[in-house]
Amino acid sequence: MQVQIPKKQLSDALSSLERVVPSRSSNAALTQLKVSSTERGLALSGTNLEIDLEILVEAQINDGSDFVVPAHLFAQITKALPGELVELHLTGSELTVASGGATFKLQTGELGAYPELSFPTHSDLTLDAKEFARSISSVRYAAAAEEFRAIFRGVQMELSPQRSRLVATDGFRLAYRDFPASSTLEARKLVIPARNADELIRVLKDGEVKLTISNGTLSVSSDRVRLNAKLMDGELPDYERVIPSSSNVTIQLDSAALRESVSRVAVVADKLSNNKVEFIAASGKLQLVAESDYGRAQDVLEVQQSGTEPAITVGFRAKQLIEALGPIEGEVTIGLGMNSPAVFRASNDPGYLAIVNPLRV
Amino acid sequence: MQVQIPKKQLSDALSSLERVVPSRSSNAALTQLKVSSTERGLALSGTNLEIDLEILVEAQINDGSDFVVPAHLFAQITKALPGELVELHLTGSELTVASGGATFKLQTGELGAYPELSFPTHSDLTLDAKEFARSISSVRYAAAAEEFRAIFRGVQMELSPQRSRLVATDGFRLAYRDFPASSTLEARKLVIPARNADELIRVLKDGEVKLTISNGTLSVSSDRVRLNAKLMDGELPDYERVIPSSSNVTIQLDSAALRESVSRVAVVADKLSNNKVEFIAASGKLQLVAESDYGRAQDVLEVQQSGTEPAITVGFRAKQLIEALGPIEGEVTIGLGMNSPAVFRASNDPGYLAIVNPLRV
Repeated sequence: MQVQIPKKQLSDALSSLERVVPSRSSNAALTQLKVSSTERGLALSGTNLEIDLEILVEAQINDGSDFVVPAHLFAQITKALPGELVELHLTGSELTVASGGATFKLQTGELGAYPELSFPTHSDLTLDAKEFARSISSVRYAAAAEEFRAIFRGVQMELSPQRSRLVATDGFRLAYRDFPASSTLEARKLVIPARNADELIRVLKDGEVKLTISNGTLSVSSDRVRLNAKLMDGELPDYERVIPSSSNVTIQLDSAALRESVSRVAVVADKLSNNKVEFIAASGKLQLVAESDYGRAQDVLEVQQSGTEPAITVGFRAKQLIEALGPIEGEVTIGLGMNSPAVFRASNDPGYLAIVNPLRV
Repeated sequence: MQVQIPKKQLSDALSSLERVVPSRSSNAALTQLKVSSTERGLALSGTNLEIDLEILVEAQINDGSDFVVPAHLFAQITKALPGELVELHLTGSELTVASGGATFKLQTGELGAYPELSFPTHSDLTLDAKEFARSISSVRYAAAAEEFRAIFRGVQMELSPQRSRLVATDGFRLAYRDFPASSTLEARKLVIPARNADELIRVLKDGEVKLTISNGTLSVSSDRVRLNAKLMDGELPDYERVIPSSSNVTIQLDSAALRESVSRVAVVADKLSNNKVEFIAASGKLQLVAESDYGRAQDVLEVQQSGTEPAITVGFRAKQLIEALGPIEGEVTIGLGMNSPAVFRASNDPGYLAIVNPLRV
């Protein structure tokens, strides 16, 4: 086999695969990468049994064949090559990687020991890749890092004939984003493990992406990338009932300015007080206050204020505020309640909603 | 007290001080920063008892006074401020830090508990700051990270009427750089702990720097910065005798190209072989080879070759080669010996020399 392939494209593909393929495993075959010759170029694939990933790279192939090589070493070698074009040459079980005067010789692995990866050939749904990735990343922060209930460590995707929604919650806060993709499938909910959701965000770039749901697996495929992600069993508990339908005070202001102000006063907040930042809304002003043994910080922002009460004081964890505001560009509308969670909406984008529980005083 | 001070300058000074002042200490006074009002502005000083650092920041001061504040908190607050001008206001023991609408209130510490820092008023030697910093950083890598003999963890400065030299060695490799500063002092050697040397490199920027040696301390001062660095007891053993006076083969080539080539082939080298990269010099070519269970890498570079032998093969640790070549711009001249250390010189700069011991085959 003899292959000529542009270094940059090969190197980019290997970077994506390096994140999926484990560098160590009790099953040594999993640390390998499979390289297959196809009519459209070289197909590079790897798996950690949670995610299967295949990336296609255009190449000039003579006398194509398939082989497996140690994934991380092959990636490092490729990055270190001096030239712009890489030549691969397979002789027996030895792979020669040559470029710009440098030559590497690698032992290939046992092709038969490599797990069979299969990607679906039909699709259930077509989405805009960028919009889908943006929706996942808007809610991903609200998933639990560690939680007694595993389901909270996932991102739920809801498909229905009317709309699609991504939602995540750790039981204390919540974020969802709706997007207008309609599905011909019957209404259903699937929960993607957060780690797999992160990989989806990274892999989805431009153009269209086709989704297939089958057998506990979400498969996505675009022109150059195919990915299978294992799903979790079960679904999130009914979260709609915890979204407050009304608030005592509603304020509207620039999201970025509020995020900066929270970060600023949070400097003096400490763990003893749960890194608490207090919102004091009154007379068209939002005062932010944080306090600890070390000192006291205060900042004031102008807001548009409405509601049934003239004033309100509520405390939040600084980090939860910053994360809830993160996906909101432009103005944010915040509904504050005396005894209820705060609701964050993007003023110009009805699709996004976040809920943050206040700290007890 | 009332002070107006540009945020950027205050913030830069605090960043330097943050590196020196410990964030925790059994002596709580050491986590503080002293702020003194002087005729030239605010003098900010801190210490970890190994290094004392004072930085002067221009400021507009009314009714000046001295106080101490928690160093890291004050630095974080300053960085978080929204405005370009910072106002400091001391009322009793409470410091108010205000800028662009945000207000922080901090409890100041006990001024009497803060250690007295004293900087010398005379100087023994004047140097170009940039040249001095460059000389230290050219040799710093050769100091030991951990070693049975503490003295190897320092950088030795040699002063004599003829020249000044910085030298470091871990007992296996060595680097020195000479620079033309003549001293009126009698010839002497001082060993700066590597950590203190790192701080010197960071603090020395432009212009002239005055050096004072007294009482186990090296003091440097420039227009805006004063620093005392504790010295180590003792001096490096006589290293001149391990520098080979001749070589079997001498090669000359571009330093950056060689460094890249070493990094490249080192990708397949592994710890079992000490990350060995072999130099095979013959017939005006330098072949670089690395090998492990995973594969074999080879690269070839054109060199100018001379010497008493037609060819030579020597193996080195990849990292030691890369570090020895680091300070050399342009061409490097390497003297290779059958049974002696390799000598690296900058072809156009007689001041720098590095020695790397080959690996036994």
